[in-house]
Amino acid sequence: MRAEIIAVGTELLLGQIANTNAQFLSQKLAEIGIGVYYHTVVGDNADRLYVQIQEALNRSDLLIFSGGLGPTKDDLTKETVARAVGKPLVHDEQALARIIAYFKQRGMTMTENNRKQALVVEGSHVLPNDHGMAPGMVIEHKGKHLMMLPGPPRELHPMFNTYGIPYLLSLMGGKNVVHSKVLRFFGIGESALEEELIDLIDSQTNPTIAPLAAEGEVTIRLTAKAKSVVEAETMIRSVEEQIEARVGQFIYGYDDDSLASVLVRELSVRGETVAFAESVTGGLASHLLTSIPGSSAALKGSIICYTNEVKEKQLGVPRDVLQTTGAVSGDAARIMAEQVRLRIGSTYGIAITGEAGPHASEKSIGLVYIGASDGKHTNVRELRLSGQRAAIQLRAAKHAIFTMLERIKKGGF
Amino acid sequence: MRAEIIAVGTELLLGQIANTNAQFLSQKLAEIGIGVYYHTVVGDNADRLYVQIQEALNRSDLLIFSGGLGPTKDDLTKETVARAVGKPLVHDEQALARIIAYFKQRGMTMTENNRKQALVVEGSHVLPNDHGMAPGMVIEHKGKHLMMLPGPPRELHPMFNTYGIPYLLSLMGGKNVVHSKVLRFFGIGESALEEELIDLIDSQTNPTIAPLAAEGEVTIRLTAKAKSVVEAETMIRSVEEQIEARVGQFIYGYDDDSLASVLVRELSVRGETVAFAESVTGGLASHLLTSIPGSSAALKGSIICYTNEVKEKQLGVPRDVLQTTGAVSGDAARIMAEQVRLRIGSTYGIAITGEAGPHASEKSIGLVYIGASDGKHTNVRELRLSGQRAAIQLRAAKHAIFTMLERIKKGGF
Repeated sequence: MRAEIIAVGTELLLGQIANTNAQFLSQKLAEIGIGVYYHTVVGDNADRLYVQIQEALNRSDLLIFSGGLGPTKDDLTKETVARAVGKPLVHDEQALARIIAYFKQRGMTMTENNRKQALVVEGSHVLPNDHGMAPGMVIEHKGKHLMMLPGPPRELHPMFNTYGIPYLLSLMGGKNVVHSKVLRFFGIGESALEEELIDLIDSQTNPTIAPLAAEGEVTIRLTAKAKSVVEAETMIRSVEEQIEARVGQFIYGYDDDSLASVLVRELSVRGETVAFAESVTGGLASHLLTSIPGSSAALKGSIICYTNEVKEKQLGVPRDVLQTTGAVSGDAARIMAEQVRLRIGSTYGIAITGEAGPHASEKSIGLVYIGASDGKHTNVRELRLSGQRAAIQLRAAKHAIFTMLERIKKGGF
Repeated sequence: MRAEIIAVGTELLLGQIANTNAQFLSQKLAEIGIGVYYHTVVGDNADRLYVQIQEALNRSDLLIFSGGLGPTKDDLTKETVARAVGKPLVHDEQALARIIAYFKQRGMTMTENNRKQALVVEGSHVLPNDHGMAPGMVIEHKGKHLMMLPGPPRELHPMFNTYGIPYLLSLMGGKNVVHSKVLRFFGIGESALEEELIDLIDSQTNPTIAPLAAEGEVTIRLTAKAKSVVEAETMIRSVEEQIEARVGQFIYGYDDDSLASVLVRELSVRGETVAFAESVTGGLASHLLTSIPGSSAALKGSIICYTNEVKEKQLGVPRDVLQTTGAVSGDAARIMAEQVRLRIGSTYGIAITGEAGPHASEKSIGLVYIGASDGKHTNVRELRLSGQRAAIQLRAAKHAIFTMLERIKKGGF
């Protein structure tokens, strides 16, 4: 099945937003084995959209539209598709009832143009909108399928996941389901990971194995097509076990996990806490943790010690250490980790000191020390991180969090 | 002039990246008054690209291509455009010399496919690549213009800004230049700002006035077309003065400024420093400041006090305050601001305490107190912020920074 994605909206042609819907849909279609051959963006113009639909019907089997289903007169996707397939628009009673209930519930007066949102192409399969008013729909026309989805991503994503994908799978014959699992890695680069798994990746068919690198981390998405979720999970589990056997020590989480969310969870269940002494990261490690709901159970507080004066006054790093080995040193990291643990009164203390640049010698930029203390033992790790200032700060903060996760896994620093 | 943007790359059709190049180019083209009518993405496939070029030549005057100029056999934009316009590819000597020098400088061996990057369509106007190896180019064909740009945004952006825009302006007759200035606002919403300026916005022609809201801030981009930069700047200045007279108190910066970069600059030139006592923001305010190079001159350190225990131990907030008025209170904010200033030894102390949710009563979520102390006076401000957890944390941190900026402007809290 050849698919193409047509986004409708002048705001895209003005560059006010990026076409992230096309990216989302393409990823999802790739996962279920549907090839996407074109993305097109056209403005809110019925004539140009009409020509584009004709063109797309000539070359593709599946047309997915995003946008143009709203209540205003600029929204004309349904009207134009209806014209292209020679069908009228009719009110969908269920969608209309939803819209009326929405306004009633909020005590608002419904205007006539809101009724327009309940119009669907006659004979189409309606896709309910669980997060907004305009329903989606699919109309079949001479063996081709035209699927219309709303423009806002928070409506489009759940509608496509919940109703769009099952519809497409049923088209593709049989009652297949598609199921994915994401493995999250830290401490190993994308190319090193691919090298370890190259035979598995090269021979992949079902499940597919898709590595992706972003922000100093690597993920692998395993996607299986099967007759049931249970069967798909079993197939994924089998590949996952082979991956775990080779590079399991670098896996820190799954699916929507982040380093910070896993650390908050692991500390919370143990009734333990961490405190950071942040120099080079300037608050980023603490911010990553406190962006997770419920993080006050895992992080009591931290000390940001951006200058030597604060390292001395707030963390008791002796002046002679700062003057001889310097603030960017294993010695400083060790004392900072031990002291922040004591002063905040947490189970663990993690220190991050280093040089992120850009105003420093090229040799020193990227040099980072992570100190980690549990009261009995203190361990220091030297890192050489690459990238610009922001990347070095982010990687250093993630290394600090990963250091804690390893401690929890291994039971000691 | 009718323009369209054609992105070439299978990675876009697989959803691995979003087509941010089309967004960037569309914004820039809108600024210089060129209308974009289509975005298209095609994969690394010569036949489909060829058909797309024919189609685009039929309907548009300006075709801008992104991607497919690299050294691999998948990169085929130049080859396919050359075929479409009936011209051969020839080596551009300057580009070739750059590539040879690049490899020589790094002591690396240049492979044959790197020479391919120096090929250009015969008769084209070459756009130098100051940030990579593959040059861009524009070829004229039967009154139409086909501009080819490299795919990586860090190469495409500067190439288009430095060489692409001047080329297009010269096409548009005369020696016009386009010049922009961005005004940055905080503390006023987009609709309130538009209301204040509605007559200016409605009557805009040259300069254009484009408001945009993002992350709790609003920007206005003023763009003038004129015979010279000086003339454009004068035109912009005239509109800017009218805007300043009405809503000047909300302007905190210009162009690439951020709240944090302006605060770091203002404190640095005064030889003053700030320290944050961060509860609800958990390190974010400090992180925003320390993401700016040279911020150690402005921020010595901060204390993250996520629990009452740390507020008491590290900031001396009396237990009875925490137990009676509570940690989310004006009283707590006042003491935290005064104490963090004293303990870190900075010129100013700013405290942020509040409730970001989601695990809290709906009434309390978004309630934030900002305390600000300069040693003589301490001021507390109560805010009611809306949005999810991340938005509340970000807005609270920005309010804290803006409070400092107002202090500097006014000379007192």
